[in-house]
Amino acid sequence: MSPERGSLGRPRAEDRTPAILEAAKALLGEVGYDRLRIQDVADRAGAGLATLYRRWPTKLALIVDAISYHADVALPPPLDDPRADLLAVYRAMTEKMCGGGEGLPGLLAALRTEPQLAAVVRDQVLEPLRARLRADLVQLAGDHPQLDLLVDAGPALLMYRTVVLGEPASDGLFAGVVDLVTAPATTPA
Amino acid sequence: MSPERGSLGRPRAEDRTPAILEAAKALLGEVGYDRLRIQDVADRAGAGLATLYRRWPTKLALIVDAISYHADVALPPPLDDPRADLLAVYRAMTEKMCGGGEGLPGLLAALRTEPQLAAVVRDQVLEPLRARLRADLVQLAGDHPQLDLLVDAGPALLMYRTVVLGEPASDGLFAGVVDLVTAPATTPA
Repeated sequence: MSPERGSLGRPRAEDRTPAILEAAKALLGEVGYDRLRIQDVADRAGAGLATLYRRWPTKLALIVDAISYHADVALPPPLDDPRADLLAVYRAMTEKMCGGGEGLPGLLAALRTEPQLAAVVRDQVLEPLRARLRADLVQLAGDHPQLDLLVDAGPALLMYRTVVLGEPASDGLFAGVVDLVTAPATTPA
Repeated sequence: MSPERGSLGRPRAEDRTPAILEAAKALLGEVGYDRLRIQDVADRAGAGLATLYRRWPTKLALIVDAISYHADVALPPPLDDPRADLLAVYRAMTEKMCGGGEGLPGLLAALRTEPQLAAVVRDQVLEPLRARLRADLVQLAGDHPQLDLLVDAGPALLMYRTVVLGEPASDGLFAGVVDLVTAPATTPA
């Protein structure tokens, strides 16, 4: 276990780590990766710039840690009913990734230019999301000939509708996506 | 018809408009909206800064025109076979919007902060794409209970897989998406 991990798990009274990682995540959503400045994170967290640079020598290192830290709390507790679980996961991922002040839109351009950042987002945020959705969909549509695409169809549609098309997230949208990915399908002729 | 429109339709020998709008579109894909500078567009197009500012007083006005200009050529010629047409449209939209040097990732953050830019992207690029896909899907899956979402499922999945997850666009991916959106579905019980 690395010292950083240890300190995340055992906060001391004066440990500013959670506040710093919260501030980094919030600013990432507000201004995007490119325009994020370490000084602004320090100011918002009420921490010294030297404190930040001692632990995170680069903006990339800080944002990678902020994303890892928040990945743990991104998914809601599992529900027994796979259809209700799908709905809960869709709601949580839309709120956390696609909301007005949230991270993914501000990260997309950087995913192309920062491979380490892209790897953390994909491995620690998007792969657990996929695994959870897959477990639900195996129960609901396990014989679908395009199960892999069906797993991604929910997050893809919710991101496209809310971020790209600017549609507000609504109960009707979530229910429609659940219906779409759980509609019985047969192998195309 | 505005003077700008007229000049797009009747280029004079010395008209730098196509070169300027090409340069603006290319730079948008390379650096994104936030970091795009009018001076860089002028340099790449071999045009004077004064020429650009005379026609486009702001970066927003220039990018709005560049997107409108390229929207006309974004979709391939229609094919008689709706399944083949779907495939052709998916390929074209992925290449033009989600490729390494292309525009949508660099625009997503700006869609939230520039409503006029968002309106142009949605009305002039994404709505014609939706209308074309809907015409194909009405023939292939017209009785699907979630036809509206099915229309968006293709672009959403292709963007998610290529831009967010970093998967290369492949024949297998395009074929899988066509199979997914054309798989017969029945109304959920």
